[in-house]
Amino acid sequence: MERYEQAWLNYRKSDFPEDGTYFSEIHIPEESPCIRSAAEELAAASEIMYGVKPACVCGTAGEGKGLDGKKGGICLRYDSSLAKEGYRIDSAEGIINISGADAGGILYGVFALLRELRAGKRPCGLSLRKEPANALRMLNHWDNMDGSIERGYSGKSFFFRNNEVLVDERTKQYARLAASVGINAVVINNVNVKDSATWLITDRYFDRLQEMSRIFSAWNIRLFLSVNFAAPIEVGGLSTCDPLEPAVEKFWQEQCARIYAALPEFGGFLVKADSEGRPGPFTYGRNHAEGANLLARALKPFGGTVIWRCFVYNCTQDWRDRKTDRARSAYDTYMPLDGQFDENVILQIKNGPMDFQVREPVSPLLGGLTKTRQMLEVQIAQEYTGQQIHVCYLIPMFLEVLNFHTGITLPGDREPEGSMPETGRGKPEGADSSGNTRASEEADGYGNTVNPGQADGLGAADIPVSDCVKDIIAGKALPCCAGGFAAVANTGDDANWTGHDLAAANFYGFGRLAFDTELTAEEIAKEWIRLTFGTDPETEAVLMKILMMSWPAYEHYNAPLGIGWMVNPNHHYGPNVDGYEYDRWGTYHRSDCKGLGVDRSDAGTGFAGCYHAANHALYNDPRTCPDELCLFFHHLPYVWKLKSGKTVIQHIYDTHFQGAEEAAEMERLFAGLKGKLPDAVYERCIARFHLQTESAREWRDRINTYYFRMSGIPDAQGREIF
Amino acid sequence: MERYEQAWLNYRKSDFPEDGTYFSEIHIPEESPCIRSAAEELAAASEIMYGVKPACVCGTAGEGKGLDGKKGGICLRYDSSLAKEGYRIDSAEGIINISGADAGGILYGVFALLRELRAGKRPCGLSLRKEPANALRMLNHWDNMDGSIERGYSGKSFFFRNNEVLVDERTKQYARLAASVGINAVVINNVNVKDSATWLITDRYFDRLQEMSRIFSAWNIRLFLSVNFAAPIEVGGLSTCDPLEPAVEKFWQEQCARIYAALPEFGGFLVKADSEGRPGPFTYGRNHAEGANLLARALKPFGGTVIWRCFVYNCTQDWRDRKTDRARSAYDTYMPLDGQFDENVILQIKNGPMDFQVREPVSPLLGGLTKTRQMLEVQIAQEYTGQQIHVCYLIPMFLEVLNFHTGITLPGDREPEGSMPETGRGKPEGADSSGNTRASEEADGYGNTVNPGQADGLGAADIPVSDCVKDIIAGKALPCCAGGFAAVANTGDDANWTGHDLAAANFYGFGRLAFDTELTAEEIAKEWIRLTFGTDPETEAVLMKILMMSWPAYEHYNAPLGIGWMVNPNHHYGPNVDGYEYDRWGTYHRSDCKGLGVDRSDAGTGFAGCYHAANHALYNDPRTCPDELCLFFHHLPYVWKLKSGKTVIQHIYDTHFQGAEEAAEMERLFAGLKGKLPDAVYERCIARFHLQTESAREWRDRINTYYFRMSGIPDAQGREIF
Repeated sequence: MERYEQAWLNYRKSDFPEDGTYFSEIHIPEESPCIRSAAEELAAASEIMYGVKPACVCGTAGEGKGLDGKKGGICLRYDSSLAKEGYRIDSAEGIINISGADAGGILYGVFALLRELRAGKRPCGLSLRKEPANALRMLNHWDNMDGSIERGYSGKSFFFRNNEVLVDERTKQYARLAASVGINAVVINNVNVKDSATWLITDRYFDRLQEMSRIFSAWNIRLFLSVNFAAPIEVGGLSTCDPLEPAVEKFWQEQCARIYAALPEFGGFLVKADSEGRPGPFTYGRNHAEGANLLARALKPFGGTVIWRCFVYNCTQDWRDRKTDRARSAYDTYMPLDGQFDENVILQIKNGPMDFQVREPVSPLLGGLTKTRQMLEVQIAQEYTGQQIHVCYLIPMFLEVLNFHTGITLPGDREPEGSMPETGRGKPEGADSSGNTRASEEADGYGNTVNPGQADGLGAADIPVSDCVKDIIAGKALPCCAGGFAAVANTGDDANWTGHDLAAANFYGFGRLAFDTELTAEEIAKEWIRLTFGTDPETEAVLMKILMMSWPAYEHYNAPLGIGWMVNPNHHYGPNVDGYEYDRWGTYHRSDCKGLGVDRSDAGTGFAGCYHAANHALYNDPRTCPDELCLFFHHLPYVWKLKSGKTVIQHIYDTHFQGAEEAAEMERLFAGLKGKLPDAVYERCIARFHLQTESAREWRDRINTYYFRMSGIPDAQGREIF
Repeated sequence: MERYEQAWLNYRKSDFPEDGTYFSEIHIPEESPCIRSAAEELAAASEIMYGVKPACVCGTAGEGKGLDGKKGGICLRYDSSLAKEGYRIDSAEGIINISGADAGGILYGVFALLRELRAGKRPCGLSLRKEPANALRMLNHWDNMDGSIERGYSGKSFFFRNNEVLVDERTKQYARLAASVGINAVVINNVNVKDSATWLITDRYFDRLQEMSRIFSAWNIRLFLSVNFAAPIEVGGLSTCDPLEPAVEKFWQEQCARIYAALPEFGGFLVKADSEGRPGPFTYGRNHAEGANLLARALKPFGGTVIWRCFVYNCTQDWRDRKTDRARSAYDTYMPLDGQFDENVILQIKNGPMDFQVREPVSPLLGGLTKTRQMLEVQIAQEYTGQQIHVCYLIPMFLEVLNFHTGITLPGDREPEGSMPETGRGKPEGADSSGNTRASEEADGYGNTVNPGQADGLGAADIPVSDCVKDIIAGKALPCCAGGFAAVANTGDDANWTGHDLAAANFYGFGRLAFDTELTAEEIAKEWIRLTFGTDPETEAVLMKILMMSWPAYEHYNAPLGIGWMVNPNHHYGPNVDGYEYDRWGTYHRSDCKGLGVDRSDAGTGFAGCYHAANHALYNDPRTCPDELCLFFHHLPYVWKLKSGKTVIQHIYDTHFQGAEEAAEMERLFAGLKGKLPDAVYERCIARFHLQTESAREWRDRINTYYFRMSGIPDAQGREIF
């Protein structure tokens, strides 16, 4: 077996060889690395699909120009009427035109064309126009420089080994895969930046990063780095990393100058500060706007962006303490700072207020903030959703988040910025006056939907076009610049990239969804199945069924009704009801012999009140709170009647028996594909399905047993509980 | 600070300088390493205690002979009327005579004399005679060759580092400490023998082991090694380690010949087989007698001993399975083999049927076996009793075990060998005919109380002198040879040897108790306190109070009523009620909303029936079962009335509030010693006392909260439960 496989780019001989006539010539508008990638992808695909090796003609890519009336040929060209990275495909008179706003758009157009052709569409009459929903479509890799991957379930890092940066053929293949689904930004190192990784921003690693950045650029990807907020101390030899200290400011400015001298295409920094032991502004009594703006000022001259993670909470909580609520923490930290961040700062907000559980409410920061660029962070690494052993197709979950109505109705019943307590420090004296002022041009490459003149708040005429998360992160809902969409990546150096072959659907799906948030989960799954495994209808039907049932099944056998966290500590795999119950992480279910759940209503921790009015009301009352979140927001008796008509305890039993059965059903379904899939793929997957079935059974029995022992209430159906 | 401290051998200037006159000359019977150690110890002590450096005169140690009528002088000499390693001290006409059965006896006599003098006794009229209760008094070190120590809480190994054997001044100081309390056998490597440690029995390590063995011998200690049962494969290059395979037999015979050629004083092997992933005879369908006898035959020509651990159980149990009982496992494995072990095999049996919990019943194998040499294994490393952070003086627990009445009343109501199912294989054809026959002379150096002619069973005249564990292991209760007393050691390369200074009381106490099982816990504690910290009465009173309250306190805040195992998995420190409840280790409490405990009565797993009649009856009925073990043997409702008059639930609450308060009280008591103890000692200890108080509070709150949530029954005293 080769060291890596082609995933969804494993081109096959086409059923329609006549389409190869279009591949007789490829016309490109100019020589550039990215256009070169696009043309080579077309040529390589053509050779496999049609047995045709097209000629490439440069500088002739006008409307049919250069084709001299011949039929057959593909024209790659620019079209300035398209939004950034947008593309258009049309065909006429035997010619396919792929027009892009820029080289990136052309590249995406090429991948789109191949997608269409491989799905069985005919070139004749093709007409397609797409502009990316999100300007910034990013993968966050949690790769460590020793080669390990934090929460990595697909082997070792292909970016680092033995504290060195790796650049090889796999680097290119990775960039190609990512580009094929529209990813345009990649953070290669773990947000927990320690030891050698702190030095990635120094010339110790510039040579290799330069090579990597060039490869990335050829696939329209910008390289980002996670940085250590304490770098001024650890790298700069300073005694402080106080963001208001001039020497610290100078350190970052000089460091950025050096970075951009070596890496002109560099994207910027991703920062996890004051979180889970990471250093940050709090050490110096500064707030996170002061911290983020420090880096933003240093990056600004070069067009760089600061992605600042909002993952801040007390990770040394006393389990006895029922007042502190981890769910509130990011909201309480960042809401008072809304409007204080520089224009090239984007806050990266996890989809839920906790940490990538199978079910959480949407973070109230999304749409709570109205004057700050917001980026949605999801995790395709499946840390809490089966770790790429269980199938868990996450796109349906991401779509629920994207389509969540935040309920922004400004101006009106709510003034988040005025009504919030001022817990952060005010604007410091002597700070750069640009710190809180929006420039009239774009701050970086990603704020392309900004309405720059109106950044200071919402006026009467500024009713948002939509209050959905997808429109907020895209920059459509609010006058501040766009944010973007990021996922914690699920790749490693396993030959198939993602450990479980079916986990590649999450990699594929995330990219596709970030580019086009109007796609459905089924559409994405269908695309991915066809590209990966071909167009056999039975294979497609079985895999589609498995993918679409996988997230609900996982939720069924997991912690019930939104409560989360019933996992084994540290590694987070497998059930452990009390695993975090008496621990310091702020993750409790508070079960006793009468009931379970956390009261986050107004009568409890008040977290429900972090939402805009309609959602606040919805979540605050257990009678209206959606069933799937009711234990997240309320402590309810086992005999509480859900809207489904079942009691909480019977719901627990029923869903857990159901979920385990669904896992077994998925294994049975997949087993039916033996002989239809490549043997290696089948064997890798069936082994994992078997583990999933066993694990789901363990989830079922542990959760059911725990609650039967605790409540003393038997299963109405008399099934076996231990 | 020096790299190691003197622990209880830190001699001080004596309050009675006149006693120094006895140290004017030391007369020794001959030059030998062990006699030399004894004389040098006397000389070194004298120099510090009395400022006198005595002369040493050799070959003159008759009764006063050589002293030429002078007063003052110590005579070391042999006395063949004493049992092996026994000693006698008397003084007359200004001369102190220390008589020993052998060099070891003389050495122990010397340490005894110094103990007496340092405790304030006057030489004049001293008269003391001691013979060791146990012939084999052993420490098991779980040191790995990489320098780590499994369940080590006092630093790194001083026997190994980087896969090399260490021999240096600390080796000697360790041997001296061990000898001073009567230890005469030491296993230096972990019973889990892997990697390099498998090669300790080869010439790769003989040079260093020779040096170490010589040092040990000079302190009357024999070196033992833990061996890997799979050594014939890993070292010998064979394809099997089947104990009935001639090539395997040959491997061990040749290996033993090599070992004894290099290490003539070598003691023998300690073996953990078929346990927790270790290889063993089961792989080949052989029983443990066949496995042990294989090694015994190889060691026999050299007088070596096999110590075979009885720690065998299913460590991949399904928590749903209520029939399998780990407590039964060792009993079920070894009882059918009683009488089948060679005479130089000793079975090493943990004090309880589980694994070193703070409270367990005594293993029913002790005294269940009647034709097999039995050695009691305890653990002073405090794996489950506070890990040398908590003070837990274990001597009172060991005394309870030693004085436990096993209830052997043979011949009479029970025939353990006949009534046991024959689960092991019978004697294999073609096996060495000596395999199951006792020789008429001693098999090794440790069976000194054997009654060799009567080894095949108990006749009518053989009513045991006592049915207590101490008499069984000493070889007094049964006609088979003596076993011995072993402890899993608690030392490491911390300067004070044991992490917590007070944990040294367990090291000291174990040795003293192994030599003299008639000592009380208070006597031992008093000795240790005076030797270590001097004779200040207040210091002594406070430390005595702390030591004597420490084990009960630990039991109070630990898992209640003998149920055990409510600890964090893997590292075993701190409370976690469900930590092992849904795991594979066979360690469950089966709590539900009505009650808790494991039914091990005849109606349950039947474990109670493993005991002789009286204990069987006692444990089998919850009304007679001692309170402290009632949840080990029975599943009882929270409202069950204990013999104390309290309900189970109120007992849980009361003991946990009490235990946490006792921990705090110990800290307060110890804090009062500031200024009375060396600063370094005080600081090391007080930091640990503080951690203990915090940890005990955590135990209190987690256990109480868990059972309040589970039972819904409030504390009768209305104290705070979370």
